[in-house]
Amino acid sequence: MKGTATVLGAGSWGTAVAKILADAGRDVRLWARRQTVADAINSTGMNPYYLPGRRLPDRITATTDAPKAIDGAEIVVLAVPSQTLRGNLAEWVPYLAPDSTLVSLMKGIELGTLKRMSEVIVEVTGVAADRVAVVSGPNLAPEIADEQPAATVVACTDTDRATLIQKAISTPYLRPYTNDDVIGTELGGAVKNVIALAYGMATAMGLGDNTKATLITRGLAETSRLGVALGADPLTFAGLAGMGDLVASCSSPLSRNRTFGEHLGRGETLEQAQAATKQTAEGVKSCLSIRDLARRNNVEMPITEQVELVCHEGVKPQVAMAALMARSPKPE
Amino acid sequence: MKGTATVLGAGSWGTAVAKILADAGRDVRLWARRQTVADAINSTGMNPYYLPGRRLPDRITATTDAPKAIDGAEIVVLAVPSQTLRGNLAEWVPYLAPDSTLVSLMKGIELGTLKRMSEVIVEVTGVAADRVAVVSGPNLAPEIADEQPAATVVACTDTDRATLIQKAISTPYLRPYTNDDVIGTELGGAVKNVIALAYGMATAMGLGDNTKATLITRGLAETSRLGVALGADPLTFAGLAGMGDLVASCSSPLSRNRTFGEHLGRGETLEQAQAATKQTAEGVKSCLSIRDLARRNNVEMPITEQVELVCHEGVKPQVAMAALMARSPKPE
Repeated sequence: MKGTATVLGAGSWGTAVAKILADAGRDVRLWARRQTVADAINSTGMNPYYLPGRRLPDRITATTDAPKAIDGAEIVVLAVPSQTLRGNLAEWVPYLAPDSTLVSLMKGIELGTLKRMSEVIVEVTGVAADRVAVVSGPNLAPEIADEQPAATVVACTDTDRATLIQKAISTPYLRPYTNDDVIGTELGGAVKNVIALAYGMATAMGLGDNTKATLITRGLAETSRLGVALGADPLTFAGLAGMGDLVASCSSPLSRNRTFGEHLGRGETLEQAQAATKQTAEGVKSCLSIRDLARRNNVEMPITEQVELVCHEGVKPQVAMAALMARSPKPE
Repeated sequence: MKGTATVLGAGSWGTAVAKILADAGRDVRLWARRQTVADAINSTGMNPYYLPGRRLPDRITATTDAPKAIDGAEIVVLAVPSQTLRGNLAEWVPYLAPDSTLVSLMKGIELGTLKRMSEVIVEVTGVAADRVAVVSGPNLAPEIADEQPAATVVACTDTDRATLIQKAISTPYLRPYTNDDVIGTELGGAVKNVIALAYGMATAMGLGDNTKATLITRGLAETSRLGVALGADPLTFAGLAGMGDLVASCSSPLSRNRTFGEHLGRGETLEQAQAATKQTAEGVKSCLSIRDLARRNNVEMPITEQVELVCHEGVKPQVAMAALMARSPKPE
């Protein structure tokens, strides 16, 4: 149905994007996996589980019935955990409207296949790649829900669809910019989670702002190297979906990956950090697939390598950070 | 004299670089304008005025006698306020050793002439441009003095001199990288002061991390536009002297420009902010010359324009920030 939009996934960012779409003038169906979440949204007008305290527009209707949510929607926004996308989407394919635009909010690389989320979408649905758009940028969900001014990137190889989505999420508090570099936009979002883990570790270890700024700079450089090897435009990494998203995720205590990294930096094990934060940060899984993707393409990603060692091989953050600092001097 | 180095200017960064040179193995003569500062350094082994509490190496000798300080030094580091460089340097020219390397630590653009510091040095001394090196990066002086691990950029068009300075300031806590892009390295350092003022204003106004990350990203974009127009390598801005320095200056409460911007953002006048911080932040002057340089080269620098309006035209920070947010959506 022309005009309607569906958001599949009622986590904090999915819920915030449902609010954006509604504020920009659409009726929105928001699919939640759990009935308690859908019921809470419909009865209280808020999502107390993932975006507590923020009032949602009346134009949002929550449901756990995915086929009903998807039915006829012009815009289908995918906001499920990266590693469950393939399984979820396989069930939803039959209900997608023929010319609908699929929008990925997900910031991960699939384990095993090493595919970006848009690649998984194309593979599972069989739609043309130019029907898939990616939205990414410095967009901490709680701040957007509070209508703090922000900007984001809508990447799609089809300019008309990029403009459609740009209009669909344009509100007084969110300014979307279009871009045709889907690869760069997705990689910026995925790798920043890994760098934010390292930043969190450095923060917990008491390292200074010079050191942390260097970590961010080197982090973007390795993101950019991987991106260019995979066909991305290097300029994307200098923009909102690269540097912007990375800086926001590293700066903010609202960032889950940074916070998770702080737990690791204080010497907690992965299990202790998961217990303390009641979740696994996206970067903990993605560091594995990003490291593998880098190795497959002969790209050096020293920070990602060290984060993987801390998360999955029991290496102490102090040892990992010392290894990063000890790299030999050379022309930049 | 082979092996000796002189630092002209005993502010916080000049003093920290004197410590670095000494820790890397040289005898260092540190020129201070005020006798009280020179005396304090010689008698207490610290600079209580600009780097309180940090012990300096014995190899540093402070003096107010510039000719004696400069005499025969292989490396002459210039660390005076940007707008006084021309006047200071004119007096010092006769004492420079014939093949000495001149190193600029200064991060400003000269008012009126709109020249970068290395251009002023070449003009005043008459030395070849390849004898001038620039050191810039994410280097908050107090953290370096505390030997927190950091990295920096040594830019010089003469590779041998770049390597000489790289070795002269290489210590276990500072890793210098060489680069031949003097223009980009200097502009990164100068414009970041202006962006850090804007960041400070945004911080005081309570804007969120999405907004502030967008400001940093757009700030680097306008720096890069100006740099490219002046012949810089765009890659420099993605490195330590561009993004790295900008992120450190915006993130840290130790940054004078950010702190000054916070005072302005709380509604203080320029005079009140100067009184409160007991100094004028570099960006307050540079925003004028950078804006003029941008206009002369037909480069759009909206953040710099707004900072200049707040600092010198009495425009309220809220009005300036609203003007920045209201720019029309377009492809990034």
